[in-house]
Amino acid sequence: GYGRFGLDYNSANERVVGRSKTNITSRLRLQFDMTAETDAGVAFNARYRAQAESRDGVAGTGAFNGARFGVSYNGVTVNVGNIIGAVENAPGLYATGTRSAGTGIDGMGFHQIAIKTNGGTVFNWDAYSSAGAGSNGIEVLYSAGGFTGHVSYSQRNGGTVAGSAGGEDRTGVMATYSFGDYYVTAAMQSSSVPLNDITFAAAGGNFGAFGAKLAYGSTDQVDSFTLEGNMDIGAASNVLVWVNSADAPGSVSTVKGDGGVDGTSFGINYQYDLGGGATVVAGYVDEADDDNQFQAGVYFSF
Amino acid sequence: GYGRFGLDYNSANERVVGRSKTNITSRLRLQFDMTAETDAGVAFNARYRAQAESRDGVAGTGAFNGARFGVSYNGVTVNVGNIIGAVENAPGLYATGTRSAGTGIDGMGFHQIAIKTNGGTVFNWDAYSSAGAGSNGIEVLYSAGGFTGHVSYSQRNGGTVAGSAGGEDRTGVMATYSFGDYYVTAAMQSSSVPLNDITFAAAGGNFGAFGAKLAYGSTDQVDSFTLEGNMDIGAASNVLVWVNSADAPGSVSTVKGDGGVDGTSFGINYQYDLGGGATVVAGYVDEADDDNQFQAGVYFSF
Amino acid sequence: GYGRFGLDYNSANERVVGRSKTNITSRLRLQFDMTAETDAGVAFNARYRAQAESRDGVAGTGAFNGARFGVSYNGVTVNVGNIIGAVENAPGLYATGTRSAGTGIDGMGFHQIAIKTNGGTVFNWDAYSSAGAGSNGIEVLYSAGGFTGHVSYSQRNGGTVAGSAGGEDRTGVMATYSFGDYYVTAAMQSSSVPLNDITFAAAGGNFGAFGAKLAYGSTDQVDSFTLEGNMDIGAASNVLVWVNSADAPGSVSTVKGDGGVDGTSFGINYQYDLGGGATVVAGYVDEADDDNQFQAGVYFSF
Repeated sequence: GYGRFGLDYNSANERVVGRSKTNITSRLRLQFDMTAETDAGVAFNARYRAQAESRDGVAGTGAFNGARFGVSYNGVTVNVGNIIGAVENAPGLYATGTRSAGTGIDGMGFHQIAIKTNGGTVFNWDAYSSAGAGSNGIEVLYSAGGFTGHVSYSQRNGGTVAGSAGGEDRTGVMATYSFGDYYVTAAMQSSSVPLNDITFAAAGGNFGAFGAKLAYGSTDQVDSFTLEGNMDIGAASNVLVWVNSADAPGSVSTVKGDGGVDGTSFGINYQYDLGGGATVVAGYVDEADDDNQFQAGVYFSF
Repeated sequence: GYGRFGLDYNSANERVVGRSKTNITSRLRLQFDMTAETDAGVAFNARYRAQAESRDGVAGTGAFNGARFGVSYNGVTVNVGNIIGAVENAPGLYATGTRSAGTGIDGMGFHQIAIKTNGGTVFNWDAYSSAGAGSNGIEVLYSAGGFTGHVSYSQRNGGTVAGSAGGEDRTGVMATYSFGDYYVTAAMQSSSVPLNDITFAAAGGNFGAFGAKLAYGSTDQVDSFTLEGNMDIGAASNVLVWVNSADAPGSVSTVKGDGGVDGTSFGINYQYDLGGGATVVAGYVDEADDDNQFQAGVYFSF
Repeated sequence: GYGRFGLDYNSANERVVGRSKTNITSRLRLQFDMTAETDAGVAFNARYRAQAESRDGVAGTGAFNGARFGVSYNGVTVNVGNIIGAVENAPGLYATGTRSAGTGIDGMGFHQIAIKTNGGTVFNWDAYSSAGAGSNGIEVLYSAGGFTGHVSYSQRNGGTVAGSAGGEDRTGVMATYSFGDYYVTAAMQSSSVPLNDITFAAAGGNFGAFGAKLAYGSTDQVDSFTLEGNMDIGAASNVLVWVNSADAPGSVSTVKGDGGVDGTSFGINYQYDLGGGATVVAGYVDEADDDNQFQAGVYFSF
């Protein structure tokens, strides 16, 4: 697991009564990975996390999430429960190589993710949940050479028919191919809730000390591109910059901080490796509605 | 601890709105056993579990249960807190040697247990709770040679008198004797709640590749017998079959699925040992009210 | 962590409907300490606890608390999150060397602590919380030779101003100096809530098999002195006796058990070391309002 803590400045908090614009942000994540292997070489595993966070001046206590169970054999993995999710697993979805997988200490809202709705990045795809029960789905992954394919499925209880689960169902598909230092990815999610239909594609690579990525995401409400570049500075530092351009006709900002998604957001993430699993991280994000955030702090792994 | 996951078909869900008859059933159990030993050889121990489950299409997050504390010396053990319970500890109460201690992946309602009320198998005796705080009682166990004796006591808050805990109290007594491959057991629970007065007896044994058990349970509402047999098939497989006959004049079924206990239920459990702590399990149960269940999946220990 | 369990007699329960005067008291504490060290020798750490308790006849399930994060270098430590707290860290605040840090198995209300309000010992200072999220503050500790200095700060959300955390803030300062077997301590807390302004001072030491301590605490409501002495008996036993005298004009007892703080309370704690981390503990406390408590049981570390 890991610990992370730092300071978080978020201009959005200037409109929240009783909350400071500058707060401690922290998370402690304890991860339990359990494994067993049969005589024939079939590997079973389970993952369990217990994490506690502080955000916006309110600290929480820790809690276990839902469990994921997996079985692997000859490059094929089947998971059930709190699954990874096909779209979530697409290379290029999250920021490349940052400790938060976004910007700064806690990801700062993950505005760099190209899959958006009028509400912003709302994680409307099946994804492993570190704090909740997750999707309770099933998924199959297959890897061979540079290719990885991933299909996930989940079905929620609901509806009005006896003996039938009529809540939202989601089917996700992801394929990615890496060749040398480059990769291309395509992913999609088909849902019984139209807003959660998703198309995603990305391509990226490393060129010595430089890295670059282009990602595209589309939902019923928003089409969005993210361009990202990063550069190693000396032996221990890395700077990552991203720009996202979103075409969201139903979510146009008229005043600062109204939550509009249409337009351009950008961010920068700086990391310095202290060795021993510890990293200094600082990040800045300017949102499409002109709210902005700054964070600086530390990660350490254990 | 262990992980288990599989598919669960339960005909009872055909009458539940918004729920499928077929669902994922899973559990992840993380067990912490702590010990300390004094210079004089007195052993202290504590047990703590954190488990997460999915049942009937709803996944849960994990949580710790209540703690059990124990001290052992020269064959005598005293436990307090989330105690085992004397009736719970009776050999022959649960299915012999199955991974779920019942049938299938999650025990499938434990219809093979001979202690029943008009509501079925409702666990109305003190027992270790993996998901809750447990009985908060005290118990003494003594083992010598093939003999084990067990007395447990619990007292709940309640009632209308100041300075006195007037909630339900339960006293359990269990004695068992094993000789060679055979055992006989008797257990009872006396409660201030008449419905929770329990009498139980069982006898069983192994005859080479075959095993058999006869169990009897009685409460104010239901008298019940369970006959169980199991057989090893080859080096890694075991099949267990059980039949329960319940005399429940207050709980006679008139239509399928009305929850009646009176009559006959039966089940079959198949296990195949994959090695490395992993086991394939399948089970089928036909309930006294003609509902039926089928489950198949995998257990793995870690 | 540790386990502890025993019997608790508390005369205050004679006025509580449905609760016995004698109950099981228990706690299981599982502690996770995580560390990482950078190449330059900066040490990061995090602490996480999951504990379950039973008190007054009601058992609880376990839960994680809030996390504390720390970084240490050259005798300076900075913690954020669920901080220790400057006043909490003052030597002489808690009972010297007892397993509960108070009297008996669970501290028995910690009546020996010299910091009181009209409600008794209410822990109205920032302190590490084993069962909750804690203060979500920041603190700096510095140690050199026999000196330790400690400053802590916390700020809660609240108030009516947008963009500003107007809840209670607390600043704590503690300094202590030890020379040989003796120590002197002073601590204070300044809060935006006047009732939580605290002054504390203590001095103590060991004289061979004997130890003694004098502590003084003051709040807006109560001035209080605690005198404590302890003595080793043979190789494995220790007896500790304390007397607290509180000047609480706003909390004078008129009848037994009315919760008055004004006057004298005293207690005695007996410990016998069983080896291997196990200790027998017994304690008696007579409160200022003439309620009394008795506890006996066992601690064991793991």
